[in-house]
Amino acid sequence: MNLTVVGLGPGGGEDLTLRAVRALEECDLLVGYGPYLALLGEEFAHKEKLATGMRREVERCRAAVEAAMDGKRVAVVCSGDPGVYGMAGLLYEVAREYGGAEITVIPGVTAACSGAALLGAPLGADFAVISLSDLLTPWGEIEKRLEAAAGAGLVICLYNPASRGRPDHLRLACEVLLRRLPGETVCGMAKNIGRPGESCRLLTLEELKQAQADMTTTVFVGSPRTLRLGEKMVTPRGYRREG
Amino acid sequence: MNLTVVGLGPGGGEDLTLRAVRALEECDLLVGYGPYLALLGEEFAHKEKLATGMRREVERCRAAVEAAMDGKRVAVVCSGDPGVYGMAGLLYEVAREYGGAEITVIPGVTAACSGAALLGAPLGADFAVISLSDLLTPWGEIEKRLEAAAGAGLVICLYNPASRGRPDHLRLACEVLLRRLPGETVCGMAKNIGRPGESCRLLTLEELKQAQADMTTTVFVGSPRTLRLGEKMVTPRGYRREG
Repeated sequence: MNLTVVGLGPGGGEDLTLRAVRALEECDLLVGYGPYLALLGEEFAHKEKLATGMRREVERCRAAVEAAMDGKRVAVVCSGDPGVYGMAGLLYEVAREYGGAEITVIPGVTAACSGAALLGAPLGADFAVISLSDLLTPWGEIEKRLEAAAGAGLVICLYNPASRGRPDHLRLACEVLLRRLPGETVCGMAKNIGRPGESCRLLTLEELKQAQADMTTTVFVGSPRTLRLGEKMVTPRGYRREG
Repeated sequence: MNLTVVGLGPGGGEDLTLRAVRALEECDLLVGYGPYLALLGEEFAHKEKLATGMRREVERCRAAVEAAMDGKRVAVVCSGDPGVYGMAGLLYEVAREYGGAEITVIPGVTAACSGAALLGAPLGADFAVISLSDLLTPWGEIEKRLEAAAGAGLVICLYNPASRGRPDHLRLACEVLLRRLPGETVCGMAKNIGRPGESCRLLTLEELKQAQADMTTTVFVGSPRTLRLGEKMVTPRGYRREG
């Protein structure tokens, strides 16, 4: 069985890895959320595609496994890295319903890394990656994680900071973080990473509380050691530095 | 000034992004830790190179900034992603000594993502990335972070789990984690990711305490929700699943 889940990196263009390009070239069928399939360049225009809508992830995995069982070489595509809030885990779970399947995961550049690269080097020391989506995790659990991470001095990267149905999550998260971190903590937002309209900006945690985020935004909350160096956000690796 | 810091991904081969390849092709001078420069393929053999030893990071950054100030197109190379325990942050800090420099960070696939891809999908839910190196962070701080992350239900990815001078760190970390997590917690180790001798294995947290790690190992400690599915380690995204 030939079933691969491929990370496209932030924009599906130049941040694709060579291994991802090869997997896309070699497959018979591309499966994915419509807008991610649309990120792929002209050179994949002729490929057979199966696009499914948002929140149709289980359906997408079943279709992929079934096509692979029928002998097709199937590539399931995800934005960023398929293992970070992506399809890899669900694909393993769904494959079990079919008696298991050998799955190849091709990693990609996740938004924590691509957003950090735009902002400077916010993830230079220990960090946590936390999603603010409460579709699959209770909000109370998310608050507990935010508070623990901030209290332990970790830099925090927030995925899914807001969406149409939950415009308030970023503000609520900032209120939790402000219990542990000063208002002037250096923060950053990266938007449309690797895509048209790419932008980023620095702000304080107090300002972040009032900021507008959407589904295309990745948010970085510095630790007490994170610095603003000019227009960049940098977390030094450690406490001392050799010569 | 043309100064770029480039993430090579795990092995410098097929996990390079297209953007990283282009930056390497376009530069005049490659700067990096010797073994990372050696990861690069034949096609870069003719490039001018400046290799420095381990722990000579500040020296390496100064040489890179000075060469860029002299008009060279300089690419500083790092294994994985340059923003995750890599050279990006230090390069920004050092550039300040020279009145600042415009630096381009080209992100790469970090070991958390490439190691996860080998093991299954351990990072499918919120996670923390913590280095066990106490060269730059006091050990007490590291213990506090481990305990906070485990207590908050985060999956944990450990970088630098051991080295010649500190063979004991992984065992000590496991002892801290066992205060918060059961001994049968699903864990994984990935070794030589993307390089000759690549391997991975699953084990329990209790077994991890006795395991041998070295500088080429990345370690994953599951959350209480992480599953062992056959020979794979999978953290389901959340608590419920749509049809």
